Formats: sequence, structure tokens, C-alpha cells
Amino acid sequence: MNAEPDFLANLRTELSSWRLWVDRAIVLGYALLAGLFVVAFTLAANWAFGLFEALYSRHAWAVLVWTPVLTAGIVWATRRWFPGSAGSGIPQVKAALHSEFPAGRRGSLVSLRLTLAKMALGAASFAAGLSVGREGPSVQVAAGVMQHARRWLSPGSSVDMRALLVAGGAAGIAAAFNAPLAGVVFAIEELTGRLEARASGVILTAIVLAGLVAVSAFGNLSYFGVIRVPRLGWDLVGPGLTVALGAGVAGGLFSRLMIASLTGSPQRLNTLRARWPVRFAAVGGLVVAVLGLVSGGVTFGAGSEAVKQMLAGHDELTPLFTLLKFIATWITAWCGVPGGIFAPSLSIGAGIGETVARFATPDMGPALIAMGMAGFLAAVTQAPLTAFIIVMEMVDGHSMVLSLMACAMLASLVSRMISRPLYEALAHHLV
Amino acid sequence: MNAEPDFLANLRTELSSWRLWVDRAIVLGYALLAGLFVVAFTLAANWAFGLFEALYSRHAWAVLVWTPVLTAGIVWATRRWFPGSAGSGIPQVKAALHSEFPAGRRGSLVSLRLTLAKMALGAASFAAGLSVGREGPSVQVAAGVMQHARRWLSPGSSVDMRALLVAGGAAGIAAAFNAPLAGVVFAIEELTGRLEARASGVILTAIVLAGLVAVSAFGNLSYFGVIRVPRLGWDLVGPGLTVALGAGVAGGLFSRLMIASLTGSPQRLNTLRARWPVRFAAVGGLVVAVLGLVSGGVTFGAGSEAVKQMLAGHDELTPLFTLLKFIATWITAWCGVPGGIFAPSLSIGAGIGETVARFATPDMGPALIAMGMAGFLAAVTQAPLTAFIIVMEMVDGHSMVLSLMACAMLASLVSRMISRPLYEALAHHLV
Repeated sequence: MNAEPDFLANLRTELSSWRLWVDRAIVLGYALLAGLFVVAFTLAANWAFGLFEALYSRHAWAVLVWTPVLTAGIVWATRRWFPGSAGSGIPQVKAALHSEFPAGRRGSLVSLRLTLAKMALGAASFAAGLSVGREGPSVQVAAGVMQHARRWLSPGSSVDMRALLVAGGAAGIAAAFNAPLAGVVFAIEELTGRLEARASGVILTAIVLAGLVAVSAFGNLSYFGVIRVPRLGWDLVGPGLTVALGAGVAGGLFSRLMIASLTGSPQRLNTLRARWPVRFAAVGGLVVAVLGLVSGGVTFGAGSEAVKQMLAGHDELTPLFTLLKFIATWITAWCGVPGGIFAPSLSIGAGIGETVARFATPDMGPALIAMGMAGFLAAVTQAPLTAFIIVMEMVDGHSMVLSLMACAMLASLVSRMISRPLYEALAHHLV
Repeated sequence: MNAEPDFLANLRTELSSWRLWVDRAIVLGYALLAGLFVVAFTLAANWAFGLFEALYSRHAWAVLVWTPVLTAGIVWATRRWFPGSAGSGIPQVKAALHSEFPAGRRGSLVSLRLTLAKMALGAASFAAGLSVGREGPSVQVAAGVMQHARRWLSPGSSVDMRALLVAGGAAGIAAAFNAPLAGVVFAIEELTGRLEARASGVILTAIVLAGLVAVSAFGNLSYFGVIRVPRLGWDLVGPGLTVALGAGVAGGLFSRLMIASLTGSPQRLNTLRARWPVRFAAVGGLVVAVLGLVSGGVTFGAGSEAVKQMLAGHDELTPLFTLLKFIATWITAWCGVPGGIFAPSLSIGAGIGETVARFATPDMGPALIAMGMAGFLAAVTQAPLTAFIIVMEMVDGHSMVLSLMACAMLASLVSRMISRPLYEALAHHLV
């Protein structure tokens, strides 16, 4: 009994230390703010992509000029003023959390200034029609907001910079995907590697509040609606394994390509990229524009529309789309624009699943598409838990938990034979 | 590029080392076996409780003899032959994983022999009508099966005893609740405190296979069916906070009572328990039988039936039921029978939620009941993530993720002021 907490003493401490409550209110306030920023970024990205779509639908060929010019402009502005905002945003937060990263330089990777830049330049990438996602950037956006809380907290507060960064990153994933569970698991699997009782309170608070803001803004909808799967039987094993292996190999290759392009030694193309980054981006933008025209417009943007089409069964172009989307996403990232690869990865994975589904019974389609999404994302990030939970929450496919889990795990094991973990390698490059 | 994995070399290693594949097959086989054992235990527990219910419905007063005699018998057999099988099973697995626990004594807490004993004596506790759950015991049952794999694995295998114990425990939760996600999070939050890439493969494998066995046996149903919640608005905040605080205080008290009863210094009642454990159990059984008769039978067993009644709106007795169930569960655990507190805790929590719901608008009932379950369980275990995910998976309440998360976190914070973490304290007592 002697080690039991003294409830009355605890209660007295709680009620008498007003500073503790001010600190708590500050954290709560910043968590709400982080949610608001992610919502604002979502609205901005959607609006910007709407602009692009309007242009494309009226003057399709104009994108051959528009996309290269805007891409070059984004890369120029990024390199000139906000180098820390290039790319996904997840490696930046991971690097800032790295134990060997000097605390003084943290502001170069995560700050309120970078949050605003990421929102503007990320939205511009959508306006350019590039193959980007807004989920990775949301991690950096929300972490940049949350870390700002530190300067108002009392010096003795138990909430340190690490906890705020992790909480912000988790809140970003939760609010961007409307997937609170994925936020929790992302924090553990990708950001900290462990679960500390003290930090988990801050993380959960941030996720709940940012998630509430997102739900208030967009309603409590699953990203892709609810997938209705038939009762899954043993006949799913063959096609499911094919999807898992295919997604694993493709995701491993994608990850390896990305690492080679973004951290590789400056030789051949990377020499050109290092010497003339803005011209390189213009050429990259041109390639993405051409790929978009060839695919009839579906490889532009995050790719969620293509996934919805596949889930609805309109999928004439899928195998070609999958290949083109793969290339467009890689080229986009190589250009160095601020933008993530989560959403494009999900649409590539969906394409893999749908391609396999053509050789299986038709009612397996949605299940295999979901498995492809989880598998490819797991292979790219080598974070199988986060990948399958994101997909589960996106499609509200509770009955598919086991198949998604198995697929994500297998794909990630295959990918591990091909490539280092993507975010790990990119973060290491930043430290 | 130089640090990239060499795919062909990796593939060659994979394909040439048959021992690796034998090891993998062994782990897969044991994971399936663990699932089968949990299924068998579930069937046995249900069958045994059916026996009790048949007796109670025909000769209600006979339980005043039956329950004390059987309880005494169970405690006698447990103490005589299988002392490691007493109680929930989760503290045993936690203690076996403790870094200071001598590896040689591990067999006294987790073994195939204890698995079989736990199944038989656990089922007998159900036959006695005690207020027990089968989820905690399932953790020990499955971990006992999984750890047995170690003796067949090659000495160089990367799958060590720790990974097997964690995987077994996680598979036990996943298969017992049909809640694979909860299994993952339980492994991280309660068993290891961290996520290791190597161990997570074994954990996921075990969860997927044991989960598949359970789904094949019982169908892919949520434990309590799908809760339909109305669109949640700000009017839920007041009642929700009340539930969270109430569940937090009640759960903290329950945890503190349990710790004092099971590890406290031998004084007053605990002196009697230490001197005459079997007679103590007989008196405890009598108290549980009286409580059951007073409540009209609803406090007997795990309490899932009562929760279903509450969710369906038949809840005349709830406030009294909640109090009596609280006492019955505590007394049952104090007796020292093999049996868990997860399911009874959920029904106590549901009772708290339902009691608050009487003062709120009626359509909030199911939401508040679910929040009560998550809150009370989180307060008792101080493992908020596992608690809210279990409840989310049990009621298939994806739309409630945020409210469940917030409630579990708050309740666990309140409980932390009142008591040490229950399983932690009990495991510490065993080391």
C-alpha cells in the first residue's frame, strides 16, 4: 500500500497549481490550432487542384506550359527562401526528432514559418497538377504549429519539444486522413519507436482535438467511403498473395528509386539536378504534364479520384495508369517540390490491386484494391502498422483487418530485401 | 546507394537457407495452434457458463451451495498444482517478460502445462458463476502455446523467447475479442513498451493467424454488434465528461482495491486469506452467489449479456447492477481463481455510462455506454490505447473513435492520481 498514490495530496496539487492548468490550456489551444492549419491546408490544396482541373478541362494542351513553369517557380521559391519545406515533410520531422540532431538547427526543419511556406507551396504543387499528396506535408504543418507551444509553456513543464513534435506529427496524420488510430500508430511506428506514458497523453490530446476540428470541417466521413466486401474465403489467398508480393516488389523499387534520386551521389542526372535545379524542375514538370495528357488526366494530383473510380468499377485504364502514376510520382518528388507521396502511393497500390483483380472473380475487386493500397504503402514506408490502419480507416473496412494486416506485413518484408526504409533514409540524409 | 540492400543476394539467401523456412513454418504452426487453444477455451468457457445458467434457472437457491463449493475446489486445485495459473494471466506474462525475471523460472508463469490448467480452471470459474472474464486468461493461454515454439527453432533464429511471449499475448487478445488491432496495441502498450521492427513481424503473424482461426470458428462478428450512434454534437460533452470522470474515479478505486487485496501486507482479512485460502474462497464464492441472487442473476459471469441488454435499452437495474458487479468482480479476483477482469470491467463501465445516460437525452445511450466501457477499462489498466481500441472494435464504432479516445485518456489520467497501474503492480509482485 505504501507506494500507492495519495489521491488527496494529488488533488490538492492539481487544484492549487494554476500554472499547470495554464500549460494544459496552451497545449490544448495549440492542438486546436494545428487542426485548423491542417484543415486550411486541405481546403487550399483542394481549391488549388480545382484551379488546375478547370484549366485542364478547358485547354488541355496548356498544361504543357503551365505545369513546367509553375513547377520551376515552386522549386525556385522553395530553394531560395524555404529549403526546409521541400519534399514530404515526414523526413524533416523525423530528422528533427533524431537524437543527434542539434536542437539549435531544429528551426530549419520544423517551424511556424515553414508551416506557412509548406501550405502555400504545397497548394501550388496541386495547382501545377503534380502527382503529390497533402498528408506528408500535413505532418510538418501540424508539427510546426505544435512545437511553437514550447515557448509559452513554463520551464518546468513536463511537455518537452520531442513530445510536441511527435504529437503534432500524429495530429497531422489524424486530421489529414480523418484517421485518428493511424495517427497514434504513426507516432509510435514512424516517429518515436516507443510508447511513453507521459508523451502519450499529449499525443492523444493533440489527435483528439485536431481530429475534432477536421471532423467539424469535413464531417465524419471515411476518405473513400465504406468498402463492402463479400464474406472473404480461402479463394482470396491466391490473388491476395499476388497483390502483396507485387505491391512489395513495386514499393521496394519505388522506395529505392526515391532514395537514389533524393540522396544519391551527384552523377549523371543528379549532376544536372544539382547544377540547374530550377531547369531540372521545369523538365520534370513537362514530363509530368505529358504523362498526364497520355493518361487522359488521371495521373494529375493526388489520385484519390482514380481510386474512387476503381472502387466503383470504372477501370479501363488501370494497368497503364498504375505505371504512369508510378513514374509521375517519382518525377514529382525528384523535382524537389513540397508535396507528399502517401496519397499517390495509395492510388498506385490501388492500381496494382485492381490489375490483379482482373484475373480473379469480380466481387473480390474492392478487397484486392484495399489490399494493394495497404501493401504498396507498407512497402514504400516499411511501416506496415501505419499503412494498414490508414487504409482500414479510409475504407472503414473493419471486416478486412486481418487481410490488410497480412498484406501490409508481407509487402513490407519483401520491400525490406530491396530497399532501406524510405523516410528513415531521407531523414538520415537531413541530419 | 552503397548502403542499399542487395536484392539478388538477399533472395539467394532466402531461397537457399531451408532452416529459415522451417523456423518460419514452426512459428506459423504455433500461431495457428495458439488460435485453436483460444477458440477451445472460449467454447469451454461458454459451455461451462451454460451449465451454470441451467442450474440457476432451475434451482436458483442451489447456487448458494454450488458456487462456494466449486470456488473452494478451484482455489484448492490452483494452489495445490498450478499456482501460476491464478488470476488474470496478464500480470504473469508481463512478469515473465520483465528484464529482472530469471529465465529459468519462466516456466512457473507461462508454459504449455499452465495453458491447459488455465483453460480447465478458467472454464470451471465460469461454471461456478463467478464474475470473471476469459480475455486475460487467453493472453496466458496463447503465450504458453507460443513460447513452446522456442524449443523447435534453430539456435540462431532471430525469434527469441521475448518475441514469442509478446506475440502470444497479443494473439490471445486478438483472438479472444476478435479485435486484431487491440492485439497490436496491447502488445506495444502493455507488454513491451516499444515497437521493434523484428518483433513486430512475429507479433503480426501470430495475430493474423490466431485471428483467422477465431474468425473461422465464430464468424467475423463484433463482440457486441455495431453500435449505431447519432451524429455526435457538442451536447455530448457534458455527459461524456461525467462518464469519463466517473469511470476514472471508479476504475482507480477498483484498481487500488485489487492491488491492496492481491499484493497487500497480510493484515486483517488478508491474514485469513493467507492462512485459510480455500475457506476464504468458499466465503467469497458465497458472497458472489448472494450478490447474484440479489441482482436477479445478472452479476454472474462475464457480464456481456448485461451489456447487450443495456445497449438494447432494457436497463431497469443498471445502477444497482453496476455496484454489485463491481463488488462481485473484486471478490472473485480476491479469491484467487483463474479468471480475468476485462469483460467484467467492460460491463461495470457500461453500467456507469448507462447510469449517466439516464440524465441525458435518450439517443445518447449507446455512445455513453461505449464511452463508459472504454473509460473504466482504461482507468483500471491505465492502458488507454488498448482500452479504447478494444471497445471500438467490439462495437464496430468507427465514428466514435475520437470520443472513445478522449474518454479513455481522461479516465486513465484521473485513475493515475488514485492508484498504481494494476497489471504493472501485480506483475511487480510476481517478479
